[in-house]
Amino acid sequence: MTQNIAILGASGYTGAELVRLIATHPSMKIAALSANSKAGLTMAQVFPHLRHLDLPVLQKIEDLSFDGIDLVFCALPHATSQAVISKLPDHVKIVDLSADFRLRNAAAYETWYGGPHKALDLQATAVYGLTEFYRDRIKSARLVAGTGCNAATGQFALRPLIEAGCIDLDEIIIDLKTGVSGAGRSLKENLLHAELSEGMNAYAIGGTHRHLGEFDQEFSAIAGQDVKVQFTPHLLPMNRGILATVYVKGTAQHIYDVLSAAYADEPFIEMLPFGQAPSTHHVRGSNFVHLGVVADRIEGRAIVLASLDNLTKGSSGQALQNANLMLGVEETAGLMLAPLYP
Amino acid sequence: MTQNIAILGASGYTGAELVRLIATHPSMKIAALSANSKAGLTMAQVFPHLRHLDLPVLQKIEDLSFDGIDLVFCALPHATSQAVISKLPDHVKIVDLSADFRLRNAAAYETWYGGPHKALDLQATAVYGLTEFYRDRIKSARLVAGTGCNAATGQFALRPLIEAGCIDLDEIIIDLKTGVSGAGRSLKENLLHAELSEGMNAYAIGGTHRHLGEFDQEFSAIAGQDVKVQFTPHLLPMNRGILATVYVKGTAQHIYDVLSAAYADEPFIEMLPFGQAPSTHHVRGSNFVHLGVVADRIEGRAIVLASLDNLTKGSSGQALQNANLMLGVEETAGLMLAPLYP
Amino acid sequence: MTQNIAILGASGYTGAELVRLIATHPSMKIAALSANSKAGLTMAQVFPHLRHLDLPVLQKIEDLSFDGIDLVFCALPHATSQAVISKLPDHVKIVDLSADFRLRNAAAYETWYGGPHKALDLQATAVYGLTEFYRDRIKSARLVAGTGCNAATGQFALRPLIEAGCIDLDEIIIDLKTGVSGAGRSLKENLLHAELSEGMNAYAIGGTHRHLGEFDQEFSAIAGQDVKVQFTPHLLPMNRGILATVYVKGTAQHIYDVLSAAYADEPFIEMLPFGQAPSTHHVRGSNFVHLGVVADRIEGRAIVLASLDNLTKGSSGQALQNANLMLGVEETAGLMLAPLYP
Amino acid sequence: MTQNIAILGASGYTGAELVRLIATHPSMKIAALSANSKAGLTMAQVFPHLRHLDLPVLQKIEDLSFDGIDLVFCALPHATSQAVISKLPDHVKIVDLSADFRLRNAAAYETWYGGPHKALDLQATAVYGLTEFYRDRIKSARLVAGTGCNAATGQFALRPLIEAGCIDLDEIIIDLKTGVSGAGRSLKENLLHAELSEGMNAYAIGGTHRHLGEFDQEFSAIAGQDVKVQFTPHLLPMNRGILATVYVKGTAQHIYDVLSAAYADEPFIEMLPFGQAPSTHHVRGSNFVHLGVVADRIEGRAIVLASLDNLTKGSSGQALQNANLMLGVEETAGLMLAPLYP
Repeated sequence: MTQNIAILGASGYTGAELVRLIATHPSMKIAALSANSKAGLTMAQVFPHLRHLDLPVLQKIEDLSFDGIDLVFCALPHATSQAVISKLPDHVKIVDLSADFRLRNAAAYETWYGGPHKALDLQATAVYGLTEFYRDRIKSARLVAGTGCNAATGQFALRPLIEAGCIDLDEIIIDLKTGVSGAGRSLKENLLHAELSEGMNAYAIGGTHRHLGEFDQEFSAIAGQDVKVQFTPHLLPMNRGILATVYVKGTAQHIYDVLSAAYADEPFIEMLPFGQAPSTHHVRGSNFVHLGVVADRIEGRAIVLASLDNLTKGSSGQALQNANLMLGVEETAGLMLAPLYP
Repeated sequence: MTQNIAILGASGYTGAELVRLIATHPSMKIAALSANSKAGLTMAQVFPHLRHLDLPVLQKIEDLSFDGIDLVFCALPHATSQAVISKLPDHVKIVDLSADFRLRNAAAYETWYGGPHKALDLQATAVYGLTEFYRDRIKSARLVAGTGCNAATGQFALRPLIEAGCIDLDEIIIDLKTGVSGAGRSLKENLLHAELSEGMNAYAIGGTHRHLGEFDQEFSAIAGQDVKVQFTPHLLPMNRGILATVYVKGTAQHIYDVLSAAYADEPFIEMLPFGQAPSTHHVRGSNFVHLGVVADRIEGRAIVLASLDNLTKGSSGQALQNANLMLGVEETAGLMLAPLYP
Repeated sequence: MTQNIAILGASGYTGAELVRLIATHPSMKIAALSANSKAGLTMAQVFPHLRHLDLPVLQKIEDLSFDGIDLVFCALPHATSQAVISKLPDHVKIVDLSADFRLRNAAAYETWYGGPHKALDLQATAVYGLTEFYRDRIKSARLVAGTGCNAATGQFALRPLIEAGCIDLDEIIIDLKTGVSGAGRSLKENLLHAELSEGMNAYAIGGTHRHLGEFDQEFSAIAGQDVKVQFTPHLLPMNRGILATVYVKGTAQHIYDVLSAAYADEPFIEMLPFGQAPSTHHVRGSNFVHLGVVADRIEGRAIVLASLDNLTKGSSGQALQNANLMLGVEETAGLMLAPLYP
Repeated sequence: MTQNIAILGASGYTGAELVRLIATHPSMKIAALSANSKAGLTMAQVFPHLRHLDLPVLQKIEDLSFDGIDLVFCALPHATSQAVISKLPDHVKIVDLSADFRLRNAAAYETWYGGPHKALDLQATAVYGLTEFYRDRIKSARLVAGTGCNAATGQFALRPLIEAGCIDLDEIIIDLKTGVSGAGRSLKENLLHAELSEGMNAYAIGGTHRHLGEFDQEFSAIAGQDVKVQFTPHLLPMNRGILATVYVKGTAQHIYDVLSAAYADEPFIEMLPFGQAPSTHHVRGSNFVHLGVVADRIEGRAIVLASLDNLTKGSSGQALQNANLMLGVEETAGLMLAPLYP
């Protein structure tokens, strides 16, 4: 049985990544692609690396028919998503890759995104898309909200620890390093090769990055109390990959055991041997997460490191994993590609 | 039906690339892996990006059993291959990724590789592994010699043109740009990040690169006369990818038509629209070749550009494509992965 | 004695590079900086790497006073330069870094730049700024036209050879590789890190690059006959540096001798030992040109390689060298900085 | 007056960086260069980017004469330095760039460097080379011990704060990101371009990096009590540059004021406006340090960021600054080069 798929916003990196992954999916068929500013072009014109694939021409969203479409991936910019998804016919399931439906609390949304949410009814039905922790609800959801890529990385390191109560909740620092594709295909000066190559810097420093809204929501929900973390992202001269270096207070071996137990049956989460540090090199282009735990020389402190590819497990791979669940397909379908190295 | 595969020299980049590709192959099973200096280690220790796979432990070649092995990929260094392959049992088919069996003429081998060939009998049975041009002979071969990655790139641009007689054979210049993984995982000063990043240079200049032996052999055979090309490779600050910029004298449109016709049914060769130039970005991690033809402003001259991934189509992907043919498997099995971009 | 300098268009890379170089100049003082869209900002806000310098605030050109200014570097976009320079007071000398005054022939300008020149009178007085070949005229010029960075590189390899008549004028191919800063600080998709890093491609292929106008003008003038070269530029994943691989027909040793003699007394032109190839790594951030000559295996053919930093010797360094001459300062003042390596 | 300089270990990156800097120094002359494994070669053969300079041929140390030499830069590997420096004649002053004389305590040396120190007498006379904090003692020292590049970066962020008592000494975390040239020109697999480009990882994690010995020594001395920090370095795909992201507990504005006051008169330390984050891009190739302070959203926490070039201010630039002091030369001589950007 074939599932007919539409991708809205196919001219961005997450759109192209979805096409790449679905190209090897055993049962999905890309039936429609939208990209408003590039409507009328072929995907080969926008992304020549996909020219070997037989794909529908890019269209404006309003020109798409959703008849026969089973599931829509919505890879549109934040705020646009709300408007578009509100108008999609009831029969389609939706995986949204934007930030629009990640925050359950309307006030929190307004705080982090600077304006009122315009589809609160829909928001109430959305399931947060961190597959490993929302699997059952995702299976029966109509709308799944993809997580932030940084937010996913930090949560893989921390959720089981907060759940188990094995770290000090007041003393969590996430120092995160990300590649540039997380910023999308946008024309900003600081994303130019000449500005970014051979150097790096912190950004959104001091607690202003929007993904903190997700950390606050999720960690507080697990802990049953207000949890606030420190979070400093850094922009690195590489295209893909996130490494979160998470400083916690707790017993390293205990932390390792808790994480190992939590992820024992997960197909995409790999625990490294105790004391080893993961690298973004080793997950590039794949849906895998590599997790390491190291004891610090200072008693009672540990470093948890989580690495994933922001475009795959941090975004489009996660989206496909969720879509598989929603459509009753094998969860790993299309996602077992090995990382590209070197 | 499952084909049991052994990979000799699995601790190098071409070995790892074979494992990556075979990981998605529908019928091949990796049954044995060798890496002499790293015998006893797991593949996850040598290449952590492959840690999600269930793979045999690395062993010394002499400790491997070839019982039940259908095909061996030999990813050993030049010269070592000859010795090892000579001793493999008769029942195994072999795809060699080294340079050892590429040159049919013993004197030419000696010229380019600096010493006598030690397995001339075996050499006489080897088929040159440029799949698109040796397909039928590969199907029935026991030993296939993988081509040089640069040699493959240049041949994709030129073979049909020489065959068709539509370019001046005395005036062919191949200016080639290659990423660094073509040099392997070897500890050489000029391969260090600090030495290579943010700059580039020509090397093996003036006609000293060994892949010229392949150009000479193949082009002369097609033309029925001695053909010598100019060939200047350049080392670029990127890990994967080759672009050959080939300067020829002939009519650009005619050249385009000849190439288009030659590759019309090839699953991995993509002709770009006339006048467009390919990019190494668009083939990264894939088995595809992108070909472009552009007319120069000077009447009667054209530029043919060929781009491929040196580790995939230029080496391990080609090897798998040949192995598929030798084993009677669908030629494209395990090889339809879309390029990784960005 | 201090020379007062104004830089127009100081918010681009060539503007910043001028400031960097002049910072160590023994007698120049930056007295005025313009940047229309960033007027009112300090240079430290636009280019934080220059924050240790005491520099004038950026202003709109119309707000600048040229009283007391000795020389203006005009680092404005093509076409804008003509309009601005026409209105500068007579007492200022001008080094223009744009393409506006490079082509002496009005028709050629129109062909390559797509519209009529609007300051032909001024054009008639401009001296082409390739210092090593126009030194005497530059000394007495009011307006010097900086060359194209690619055009400079190719000319360093070829001018003495054409002058000496030692190569075949009908068979010159310049295969050029350039870093991305040559494209300036402009917001174009193909200049993004995610699009450029880890891959490369040819562009302006087939004879459409505007720097061909300079090659045609200069080479034809030297030869006393129409000379047309083939020229294929490639965009590489590096910020600075150009390598021209020039294919010529002639005797390599003779070519080497001619170049060596031509550049024997030049402070910035370094001849490598015969047979050695230069690297862009070794000129980064400096005003030096490295030249190499190699004999091809095919009799009667040679490869000439020229390497320089497009922002320094290819643009702002050349501009400062010319300014030194125009102001009667030591030609090398501010320009003897060693390359940055690694 | 000219100072005659010898550089021991000139074939490494710090040696080459010293030559680059001294090339623009107004009064120093490089009179001798050693490089044991490359003795007999010219510097142009080992580092072609320095070919325009007139430099002595590389010699073995035992073949050098120190007559007339005023100061020796010793850029030899750890442990080798002790042996070599012990034998230098009394009249030469010495700046050592190795780790050999950084730790005042013999037991601490043994702990961090795995063996007993072999020149403890000499050690007792060495001054720790963090110029801004040991300036007076450096002026009169015969032997100055260059600091670790990471150790310098962390200390610029923290020393005035510990001195002022304005942060919690038990809660200091230094998350540091470094470029690859800090590892030197050594042939290690993880330093290859193919292994490092486009990805990153933590290393020496959990408190095992040797520069912790310097942090412990210096911070404890300032505080008058045992101070232990957490320190996690990360290896990034860039050649030069260190960014330390330092997490502290204290009042951000107070911290900013303390740092601003401490560095008010320092020629190489630049305080960014409050709330701004520095970038490694903006110090590349220069002797400058950029410092930023940001308040976290969590009350009572701040992030201090320090950025410098590991080869310049982190090593050879610091060495030259110290040498200037030791020789009675202007402290900034040869060191006011603006950063190279882009």
